[in-house]
Amino acid sequence: MAERRIIYMDHAATTFTRPDVVSAMLPYFTEHFGNPSSVYSIARVTKEAIERSRIQVATALGAEQDEIYFTGGGTESDNWAIKGVALANRKRGNHIITSKIEHHAVLHSCQFLEKEGFEVTYLPVDRNGMVSPEDLEKAITDRTILVTIMYANNEIGTIEPIAELGAIARKHNVYFHTDAVQAIGSVPIDVKAQNIDLLSLSAHKFYGPKGIGALYIKKGVRIENLLHGGGQEKRRRAGTENIPGIVGLGRAIELATADIPGHSARVAAMRDRLVTGILEKIPYARINGHPEKRLPGNINISFEFIEGESILIWLDDVGICASTGSACTSGSLEPSHVLLATGLPVEISHGSLRLTLGDANKPGDVDVILDVLPKVVSKLREMSPLHQKTEKDRRCDV
Amino acid sequence: MAERRIIYMDHAATTFTRPDVVSAMLPYFTEHFGNPSSVYSIARVTKEAIERSRIQVATALGAEQDEIYFTGGGTESDNWAIKGVALANRKRGNHIITSKIEHHAVLHSCQFLEKEGFEVTYLPVDRNGMVSPEDLEKAITDRTILVTIMYANNEIGTIEPIAELGAIARKHNVYFHTDAVQAIGSVPIDVKAQNIDLLSLSAHKFYGPKGIGALYIKKGVRIENLLHGGGQEKRRRAGTENIPGIVGLGRAIELATADIPGHSARVAAMRDRLVTGILEKIPYARINGHPEKRLPGNINISFEFIEGESILIWLDDVGICASTGSACTSGSLEPSHVLLATGLPVEISHGSLRLTLGDANKPGDVDVILDVLPKVVSKLREMSPLHQKTEKDRRCDV
Repeated sequence: MAERRIIYMDHAATTFTRPDVVSAMLPYFTEHFGNPSSVYSIARVTKEAIERSRIQVATALGAEQDEIYFTGGGTESDNWAIKGVALANRKRGNHIITSKIEHHAVLHSCQFLEKEGFEVTYLPVDRNGMVSPEDLEKAITDRTILVTIMYANNEIGTIEPIAELGAIARKHNVYFHTDAVQAIGSVPIDVKAQNIDLLSLSAHKFYGPKGIGALYIKKGVRIENLLHGGGQEKRRRAGTENIPGIVGLGRAIELATADIPGHSARVAAMRDRLVTGILEKIPYARINGHPEKRLPGNINISFEFIEGESILIWLDDVGICASTGSACTSGSLEPSHVLLATGLPVEISHGSLRLTLGDANKPGDVDVILDVLPKVVSKLREMSPLHQKTEKDRRCDV
Repeated sequence: MAERRIIYMDHAATTFTRPDVVSAMLPYFTEHFGNPSSVYSIARVTKEAIERSRIQVATALGAEQDEIYFTGGGTESDNWAIKGVALANRKRGNHIITSKIEHHAVLHSCQFLEKEGFEVTYLPVDRNGMVSPEDLEKAITDRTILVTIMYANNEIGTIEPIAELGAIARKHNVYFHTDAVQAIGSVPIDVKAQNIDLLSLSAHKFYGPKGIGALYIKKGVRIENLLHGGGQEKRRRAGTENIPGIVGLGRAIELATADIPGHSARVAAMRDRLVTGILEKIPYARINGHPEKRLPGNINISFEFIEGESILIWLDDVGICASTGSACTSGSLEPSHVLLATGLPVEISHGSLRLTLGDANKPGDVDVILDVLPKVVSKLREMSPLHQKTEKDRRCDV
C-alpha cells in the first residue's frame, strides 16, 4: 500500500528540522560532547561551536555576538525577558505594557507578574490585529518599565509596526521586548534600526530543532536571571549548554535568513493563490488579519456556520495538517483570544481555520486544498442547522 | 599521523550520547516532527513518543507516569522545584532548608529567594560531606516549607541519606526535593520508598542528550509554574516539547537503569584500582568524600603543595580529561565550596583533582593515569617552593 501523501500546512506550529541542520548537529552528540565549561582541549571544540552559532544568530538580527544568549526555546526567552526585566527594574516602576494578542508565553508571564504586584496594560488591536503606536504612547506612564509587543502574530500573521513602537518606548526610556518567534526568516530584522532591546526566537519555527531558542539582550539592559545556577552564558543563563541544539539553531537561522525576499515571495505566491481560490469557491468566508502587513505563509480564515475543529478532522482524514489557531491551545474549545481581540464575534471565531505554508509545501498542495476544502466546508454546512436556516432565508429573499 | 587517544575521566561534567540514543532521536527531527499539541494524526506519533518516554522515566524512579514533567535540563528542574514550591506555599511559611554542598543551581535559586524575602538554612556537612538527619530535624520550624538536599554530590561523590532525610521532612509535613542529577544510573532510586516529593534529573549525565531533563512532582504537591505560557505538560511547563530530546532521555534512562549493580561494579572496580594506585604512588594525597557511601565513578583527591588547575593542564597535554570540581565553576579560581564545607583548608582544596569514570573508560585507562599522574604531581611539586621547604624539613628531621 502506498503511503498516504501528507500536506503539511501548519508551519506556524512547528517545522521539520532541515536534514543539513541535523547533519551539523550530529557530531556534537557522540564525538564533540565535551562540557564547554571544562578546561581541557576537547571542550574547546564545543566552546568554539557555541560562539560560531552565536555569531550566526547575531548576524541574522543585526546584533553583537555578546548580546545573544541561548535558552531552551521561545517560551523560556519570553519568560526571561519579561520577568527578568520586571524584577531587575521594580525600583524604577511596576508597570508593563503588552497587547491583547500576544502569545500565551507573554500573556501568562504578565499575569504571573500581576499576582506579584505589577500592573499590566493590555493594548487593544484594530480589526486587522494592529497595535496602534498612539495607543502605546498614551499608555506609558512614569512607572512603565517594559513594553512587550510581538513582531508578528502566530494566529493571524499580522506584522506589527515594531520600529515605530520601539522608537516610542526608547523615547520614554522604557525597555522594548518583542517576541519574534514567528518572524525569523519571513521578515528582515535589524534590532538596532528597529529600537529593539530584547528579542525572543525559537529554532523549531525556522527549520531548526525543538528545545532551543535565544534571547537577544541589548548591551546595558538591566535584567535578572530566570535560571540560576552555574556561570554559563556569561553568568546570565545557567545550565550546561545544549551544544547540538545551539549548533542546529545557528545553522538554521543562517539558512532561514540567507534569502528572505526570495523565500517569502515563493511562499506568498502559493499563499495568495490559495486565498484567492478559497474566497472564490467558498461563500461566507472572511480572511482574518491584515490584508498586506502579514507573514508570507499565513492564512487565517473564518467560515460562518461551522466549527474550525470539525474542518480539521475532515482535512486530517485526507492527510492535510492544519490548525484552528495556535498549536498551544488546540484541543481546547475556548475561542481564540486573538480573533476576539480583532472584534470577530465568538461564533465566527469558532469557525476559523489557520493554514500556514512553508518549505514543506509545493505549489501542487494548493490545488489539493482548493479541491478538498470547499467540499469539506460544504459538507459541514449541510449538517449545520444554522446554515440551513440562513440558506432558506436567503432563498426566500430572492 | 595517528589521532591522539583521549582518556575521558570527566563523566560528572557530561557524558557522550549513546549512539543508539541518537538513533532513537533521529526520526523525530525530520520525519515525526508534528507539534504534539496539534489535532491531526501525524502529531499523534509525537504525542505517543512523549508518553512512552514519560513511562520510561517513571519506571526508572518508581513514580507514576503523570508525575513526570519534562524540562530543559537539571538546572531548570532545580529552579522550578525550589522557586515553584516557595512561591506556591509562601502563605504556609517562608523557610527553606538546604545544605552547604549543593549544586549552584540549588544554591543560587535559594539565594534568589532570600532576596525575595525567604529565609534559607544551609546545613553543614561532616568531613565526608554527609548531611546529618539530626541537623535537619533540628532546623525544621513551623515556617519550613521545603527541604532540598542533593542525592549525590557532583564534586566529591558523597551519597546522602535520602530516605532518612525524606522521612524527617515528611514527618513534619514539609516538601522534600532532591537534585539527583549525579545519581541516575549509579544508585537505585525509588521515590515512594525514599519519601521524595520532587526530584531533578538531566539526560546528559547518563549518556542522553544535553538540553533535556525532567522533574518528578509527587501527586498533590503544590507548586507554581516556572515557565508560563502554553498548556503543555498538563499546563505545568509551557513551551513546545523537545521531542527528540524527550525520546533520547527516555531511551537513555532505560539503558542507564537496566543494570545498575553490574554497571556500578564495573566502574567502581576501575575507580578503586585507580585510587589504590594513586595513594601508593603519590605522597601527601588524600581522598575527599565518603570512603564507602559515594558514587561508583567518583574520585576526588587533594595533593598538597600544588594547584589543581596546573594538574589539569599537564593531564590535558597527554589527552587526559579531568576536572578540579564541578564543570560549572571550572576556569574560576575560587576554591570549591564543597571542599571548604568538608573542612578542607583553602590551600589544600586548591590542589584537588576530580576524576569521574564511566562508560567512556576501559581498564587500560587506569594504567595510563597511574603512569602519568605521579609524574605530573612530582614535576609540579619540584616547582613548588612550599614543597621544597617541606621536603627539606623532613630530611632534616630524619
